[in-house]
Amino acid sequence: MTTRTEIGSIGEFGLINRLKEKFSLENSSSIKGIGDDAGVIDIGDHYLLVSTDILIEGIHFDLSFMPLKHLGYKAVAVNVSDIAAMNGLAEQITVTIGISNRFSVEAIEEIYEGIKMACANYKVDLIGGDTSSTTGGLILSITAVGRVAKDKIAYRHTASENDIICVTGDLGGAYVGLQLLHREKEVFLSNPEMQPELEGKSYIIGRQLKPEARTDIIHELADLHIVPTSMIDVSDGVASELFHLCANSNLGAVIYEDHLPIDGVTFETAVEFNLDPITCALNGGEDYELLFTISRDDFEKIKKHADIFYIGFMTKKENGIRMKLKSGSEIPLQAQGWKHF
Amino acid sequence: MTTRTEIGSIGEFGLINRLKEKFSLENSSSIKGIGDDAGVIDIGDHYLLVSTDILIEGIHFDLSFMPLKHLGYKAVAVNVSDIAAMNGLAEQITVTIGISNRFSVEAIEEIYEGIKMACANYKVDLIGGDTSSTTGGLILSITAVGRVAKDKIAYRHTASENDIICVTGDLGGAYVGLQLLHREKEVFLSNPEMQPELEGKSYIIGRQLKPEARTDIIHELADLHIVPTSMIDVSDGVASELFHLCANSNLGAVIYEDHLPIDGVTFETAVEFNLDPITCALNGGEDYELLFTISRDDFEKIKKHADIFYIGFMTKKENGIRMKLKSGSEIPLQAQGWKHF
Repeated sequence: MTTRTEIGSIGEFGLINRLKEKFSLENSSSIKGIGDDAGVIDIGDHYLLVSTDILIEGIHFDLSFMPLKHLGYKAVAVNVSDIAAMNGLAEQITVTIGISNRFSVEAIEEIYEGIKMACANYKVDLIGGDTSSTTGGLILSITAVGRVAKDKIAYRHTASENDIICVTGDLGGAYVGLQLLHREKEVFLSNPEMQPELEGKSYIIGRQLKPEARTDIIHELADLHIVPTSMIDVSDGVASELFHLCANSNLGAVIYEDHLPIDGVTFETAVEFNLDPITCALNGGEDYELLFTISRDDFEKIKKHADIFYIGFMTKKENGIRMKLKSGSEIPLQAQGWKHF
Repeated sequence: MTTRTEIGSIGEFGLINRLKEKFSLENSSSIKGIGDDAGVIDIGDHYLLVSTDILIEGIHFDLSFMPLKHLGYKAVAVNVSDIAAMNGLAEQITVTIGISNRFSVEAIEEIYEGIKMACANYKVDLIGGDTSSTTGGLILSITAVGRVAKDKIAYRHTASENDIICVTGDLGGAYVGLQLLHREKEVFLSNPEMQPELEGKSYIIGRQLKPEARTDIIHELADLHIVPTSMIDVSDGVASELFHLCANSNLGAVIYEDHLPIDGVTFETAVEFNLDPITCALNGGEDYELLFTISRDDFEKIKKHADIFYIGFMTKKENGIRMKLKSGSEIPLQAQGWKHF
């Protein structure tokens, strides 16, 4: 009898771990395989970074509120963000698009207009790809190629005990923006005459529809002569990403509830939706900020930075991964992340 | 009023050309963009090659006759073939898989078993990827990264008049194999008791289900000190690929009907299906052989090669792209290729 294990029973990361065990690296140019934000290839004086991310209609985006140009932009940004998470800068991308005849040439050109804007913004060249028909939905699969000096690369597995945990920007906005877009879609579907109530909400809607990769931070860290001891980008929620840094570095962590950066509009809108803003900040996905650790020696250089926030520090593994609440008590952190399956 | 242009009205290559015009290369490391088998990046002493190909259920494969292990193998082989078409060897791949809960963990492991076999065979390392759910079908999007010495790269646009046109292996087998698999599927659907009639057909079925990238030829060309003046792999049919070489090199071509290499089983089975074997050889896709041109000075080195066939030569553009028939007359060649839209 053959066994049938449901993907849902082991989850996305369980599946990746199971597949990862079967593969080893044989070529001397292959430095790092499955299990970081990008694969790493030795090209002499630099490491080449290769990252790939797919966006599937009905899973990752809803064209009823995602403009095609934004979709193209976002598909590039999320891949550039993966390269940034290795402390590198993307230089090239390939774009694979799957489309049905539901889409006109003009619609596809809109997507590529967004891709082009992102290419210009992140100084990335489109160097190839593939085009295919699909039986229905739209698929965008992008691979980004970047570079980092060998002594500047930031992996997930290299944090040390007592390293300071930092996060850029603010958290939870993309998730709360998505809730708002979903609500407006429902309102529109039940009464197409209704006008959307989005006044004052453009920040969080932008966080969802047009996220930016934090390449600016990569340049700033270089200027400050800081090499993060570990780094990851926030695609599934900062709690989930912290779990990855801890698991890969074989450490625990403590973060402070009152240090989590949350934008005012994110906070207010979460409350409007009866959501806990802290939970949104911890577990809301798609912020594409950078979560990284630095040596305590580097803390002075960033402690007054307007867009980098100290949220905690790495501990021994035995301490677990915990959050210190405003009340002073500590609770174990939950990593919910995005459930694909 | 906004215009709506149907993709079908301009076709896949029309669409690619229209998109290509909007993009230019800005980074000094970007050597070649859209319009060849792989993008080309300068990494110092070598060029890095990046190629990507997507396989979508219901478009590129039918799981009723494509075993999952073969699918994994083929997805790698077609990408390694794109790198070979630049005269390079693939060293790394990333694998993006989209799956619905229709698939068990064991089924996905079957796909990765095939990927692993191909990795071992082509000496390629899996260094990353992405995993996503889909709303139904299976998607496999692979990116291959390879290398070629700068003076050995073979583009599509660099053939010269009078260069000799060569093709490896034999043509049309994958297409005729597909017709056979489709017929057996129909027979099975109408009467599940029927046994498949595939005796003596394993060669062409293998051509469809388990194609190989011709990395052996890349090694042999290196041993023979031959750098093709242009090259492409045969994914859409040799006629369509010859059109690409001619268009990119701004040349015409003559090929000889009686020089087209066709395997005996391909020939017989085509006749059984009332198909013209020559048409199958010219326009059947997915052979993944190499079509290339060489300088006349190199002809002596390959003219007795058992697996490289001289099929014609490049001419001035004004002569068009023609086939010399066995009868002695010449006809303009048609490039049908694969119609995705």
